[in-house]
Amino acid sequence: MILTPGATIGILGGGQLGRMLATAAAELGLSVHIYCPDTDPPAAAVAAGTTIAPYEDAEALARFAAAVDVVTYEFENVPVSAVEGLGDRVRPGPRALEVAQDRLTEKAFLAECGLPVAPHRGVSSPEEIAGALTDLGGVGILKTRRMGYDGKGQVRLVPGVDVARAFASIGEVPAIVEALVPFDAETSTVLARGADGRTAAYTAPANEHSEGILRRSTVPGPLTAGLEAEAQRLTADVAEALGYVGVLAIEWFVTGDPANPLVANEMAPRVHNTGHWTQDAAVTSQFENHIRAIAGWPLGSTARTADAVMLNLIGHDADDWQRHLDTAGAKLHLYGKRDTRPGRKMGHVNVLSRGVDFRAGG
Amino acid sequence: MILTPGATIGILGGGQLGRMLATAAAELGLSVHIYCPDTDPPAAAVAAGTTIAPYEDAEALARFAAAVDVVTYEFENVPVSAVEGLGDRVRPGPRALEVAQDRLTEKAFLAECGLPVAPHRGVSSPEEIAGALTDLGGVGILKTRRMGYDGKGQVRLVPGVDVARAFASIGEVPAIVEALVPFDAETSTVLARGADGRTAAYTAPANEHSEGILRRSTVPGPLTAGLEAEAQRLTADVAEALGYVGVLAIEWFVTGDPANPLVANEMAPRVHNTGHWTQDAAVTSQFENHIRAIAGWPLGSTARTADAVMLNLIGHDADDWQRHLDTAGAKLHLYGKRDTRPGRKMGHVNVLSRGVDFRAGG
Repeated sequence: MILTPGATIGILGGGQLGRMLATAAAELGLSVHIYCPDTDPPAAAVAAGTTIAPYEDAEALARFAAAVDVVTYEFENVPVSAVEGLGDRVRPGPRALEVAQDRLTEKAFLAECGLPVAPHRGVSSPEEIAGALTDLGGVGILKTRRMGYDGKGQVRLVPGVDVARAFASIGEVPAIVEALVPFDAETSTVLARGADGRTAAYTAPANEHSEGILRRSTVPGPLTAGLEAEAQRLTADVAEALGYVGVLAIEWFVTGDPANPLVANEMAPRVHNTGHWTQDAAVTSQFENHIRAIAGWPLGSTARTADAVMLNLIGHDADDWQRHLDTAGAKLHLYGKRDTRPGRKMGHVNVLSRGVDFRAGG
Repeated sequence: MILTPGATIGILGGGQLGRMLATAAAELGLSVHIYCPDTDPPAAAVAAGTTIAPYEDAEALARFAAAVDVVTYEFENVPVSAVEGLGDRVRPGPRALEVAQDRLTEKAFLAECGLPVAPHRGVSSPEEIAGALTDLGGVGILKTRRMGYDGKGQVRLVPGVDVARAFASIGEVPAIVEALVPFDAETSTVLARGADGRTAAYTAPANEHSEGILRRSTVPGPLTAGLEAEAQRLTADVAEALGYVGVLAIEWFVTGDPANPLVANEMAPRVHNTGHWTQDAAVTSQFENHIRAIAGWPLGSTARTADAVMLNLIGHDADDWQRHLDTAGAKLHLYGKRDTRPGRKMGHVNVLSRGVDFRAGG
């Protein structure tokens, strides 16, 4: 399936990722229809059409699917049922959603694809948590299997912890306990895979989180050329195993251990916050490449054109917008969200530095 | 007046310029409302709101004005009446429209600002055309005073021409006869002026037209550093005289005559086709700078980041979209227009070359 200009892309989810996908689609002469359950979604302001309905509304979904030429998603917690039955018209497919929605399934799948993952155990009771902790050396992180993002549904486990209370704090839902991975740095591979199976990956940035939320991504990042290639190869293997079409991200711990230098933390079956720098410092942004891929079009170059630091504007960080507008080399991106709330991603800034010879790099 | 993120920009006109302004506004967290008389305008697909009504509909215009925080236009033939009474809320103001809508007024105004213009005469009858031709040396171009664009409403006058037929061919409306200006090259200055009166100009490209329509703009262009500075100074003088806020373009003939090296051809009170290369080869695009200016925000850097050739895709040129997607260094922009017609601007391609040290340039 190859779209022609004028075709309509349906996007499940209406947040900032959908918004940036929509403007990228518009630049290529494509229309966008947003489907999401939340009123006043940021993406609707730049979409030709919007459906506000629950993901469980089969009738609304059927009408949406009939109105668009291809369906994609910008949010990995869209119910798999919402995209089943769309066949090749949903890109990436339902399998990527299924895998990414359950941390235990995801870890098993990544390991199967040859990616090193942290030691972990599936748990469903305080007793299993206690047993897992013993197995994993007394410390770890308890995470819900499903619906976690931005550090939500996670609790640190230390020796002597009250496991029953920990289990209660995550809502007593199926979970995993992961061993802590000591790391020197965090990074990520953002990779596009076309409908023809070709792949193109971006430079892996150095990612800094706090309180479970990404704060900053810097390119070039922490990987040697050898590790960069290895991370890209492994990410391509995951994409290949999923028959993936679109942009996929794998987050990695960089351990500093020569025997096991990269440990996969998690995957995201969508454009990724750690790829936002590509809007201003790559030949083709991750958003454009996702659109190209799902349209059945050739991927654009992922070459880097500048050094960049991407700063997330979280909550009231965004109140500083005027300063960023006035900073040399800074490109401000705001998501048009009306309410500023602590922890809410309101925008980002890409701060570029040029004057470097990029012919050899990126 | 300084807008805050979340504010709404009203745009009169719904073509590709409005579309590209709308996506630039969205990146900055601003919403857009399009007002235009044509059904299914390209800009509506990326706008939060759209009003389809004639420019003469005072009631619809009043509702539109009440729904937005600032009004701008992407088309210089919007009736001045549509923006009168909006005070500082219309940027650039009605005066720029007034001047740009009448070639005779425009020429007089540019000359008053110190810009060299071609010898010309206002004409309203075949007799006046014949007289003007004699004055101007026997050859010239007859152009309607109003509503001309992309070579429409123009006819070449040569010795022995049937002036009555020429006058009939432009509809017997008030017109001007312009002397032919022999030129080595055509160029343009695209300049942004902020609400604070600061200005920033882009590198002037070499512009190539055929059949009155721009085909190609190349940066760097034909101007020496001295002429570039002169062209920018004169353009800033025009902007200053108009109290202009936003992006303004002046088209120039480069004559090769040391006594009179630059002759102003026309002005456009809006973002300009010869500035489309700035989307991919300048730190801040002309679209972003227009939005910043009318929002009362500081202008962004107009520095150039690559050499670029902008190719317009006119009519069936756009059928070649797949080739451009696959060309190294090419950035494809399509306007989402449903019907391909000869002479219709369907999109453009910016072909970039890097590997040059831009620290000293642009």
